[in-house]
Amino acid sequence: MIRVVLVEPREPRNVGAAARAMKNFGLEELVLVNPERPLDEAAYRLATRGAADVLEQARTVATLDEALAGAVYVVATSARAREGYAGEVCTPREGAPRVRAMTAEGPVALLFGRENFGLSNEEMDRAHAVWRIPTGGYASLNLAQAVLLVAYEVFLARAELTETARPRPAAAEELERFFADLEAYLIEIRYTDEHRLEGAMRAFRRMAHRALLSSNEVQRLRGLLRQSRWAIAHGGERVD
Amino acid sequence: MIRVVLVEPREPRNVGAAARAMKNFGLEELVLVNPERPLDEAAYRLATRGAADVLEQARTVATLDEALAGAVYVVATSARAREGYAGEVCTPREGAPRVRAMTAEGPVALLFGRENFGLSNEEMDRAHAVWRIPTGGYASLNLAQAVLLVAYEVFLARAELTETARPRPAAAEELERFFADLEAYLIEIRYTDEHRLEGAMRAFRRMAHRALLSSNEVQRLRGLLRQSRWAIAHGGERVD
Repeated sequence: MIRVVLVEPREPRNVGAAARAMKNFGLEELVLVNPERPLDEAAYRLATRGAADVLEQARTVATLDEALAGAVYVVATSARAREGYAGEVCTPREGAPRVRAMTAEGPVALLFGRENFGLSNEEMDRAHAVWRIPTGGYASLNLAQAVLLVAYEVFLARAELTETARPRPAAAEELERFFADLEAYLIEIRYTDEHRLEGAMRAFRRMAHRALLSSNEVQRLRGLLRQSRWAIAHGGERVD
Repeated sequence: MIRVVLVEPREPRNVGAAARAMKNFGLEELVLVNPERPLDEAAYRLATRGAADVLEQARTVATLDEALAGAVYVVATSARAREGYAGEVCTPREGAPRVRAMTAEGPVALLFGRENFGLSNEEMDRAHAVWRIPTGGYASLNLAQAVLLVAYEVFLARAELTETARPRPAAAEELERFFADLEAYLIEIRYTDEHRLEGAMRAFRRMAHRALLSSNEVQRLRGLLRQSRWAIAHGGERVD
């Protein structure tokens, strides 16, 4: 339901690189408006085998009207911060959730301009929204880079990434048993004198809390103390 | 304060494309670890004139240690979702605010692997965080695309220096000395058998990285090992 439209691309290899960028983020529908040259071997090489199907299924049309047929929402991308567009100007990140929402209504078109001078004002005016990719002063993204960043933002707006799965965190009482064990161990090995023990324990607690230890990790640390005690009991002698 | 480190890049033109990607998002410090070939004309062509200075100022070093010298926070990028890294696994978007915050403490290194097989497990283990770029099934980002997306996320993550002031974080080389010391200790106390040692070390690295240990804390942990050794040498006898 999301269509990438490249307006008058000059270089087939840029189209290939754009296809690869699309495919990484699950976009597969590519429309070329009046390209300067037909897709060639360089285009397929840049697409890599994984995105060859995007190129094979790409439609070539003569006019922007044809490319936008049926689209319920059109986004134009722009490197410049000009004012006065017909569409709302925002960043890809700001606009991506709207694109996702609109796919429930019908096809959405993402519009990219020519390598050398982008989209004309008239083409811009076809867009509901104008996405300007923020850059750090030196702004010189090529076509495939712009497609990559836009596809990435649209993809992330869909996925609402479930945060990376984390192992079960240690419960407070598990941590306390570890701290009690550690404190006893510090006394056994004479880690510090009595009136500095409290401060030392606080320092170790701080590290543990900051690490957000999992249950397994607390077990591992207690295993380390247990094994240290074993080594102490054997007094460093070789017991092979 | 943000250093992009490319580990053993094969193709100079990929380095050039990465430089262009960096420059778009205000990153200028590039370090190449043992590149297969020196930078050539193709590299400069891909960088475009705007990012030529990034290539001119790029440092080439022989080892990852040199590349990470002084870094207080290290991020490794990975295309795969393997488990078992020493660093916390998250997405660039989740991790970027932390990178911004850490730049207030010292240099941050963003680590990218070889074009063909990425970073080794040992290289991964140097990282506080492992960033996996989420993709849509077909995952085939090239080196410069990965650099582009990471640079973009870091750029967009406004400093958000809300975190409370932290003491001076440990530099990469301090951490490595501690890990070497810990590994020797684990062998001394027979914490685990030989073929499980690597996994154990990775688990300890993971906790340490997640805790973002300060320089003082690393000293404290090494003091704990030192005192444990003292206790072992005295074999648990009472020496009051």
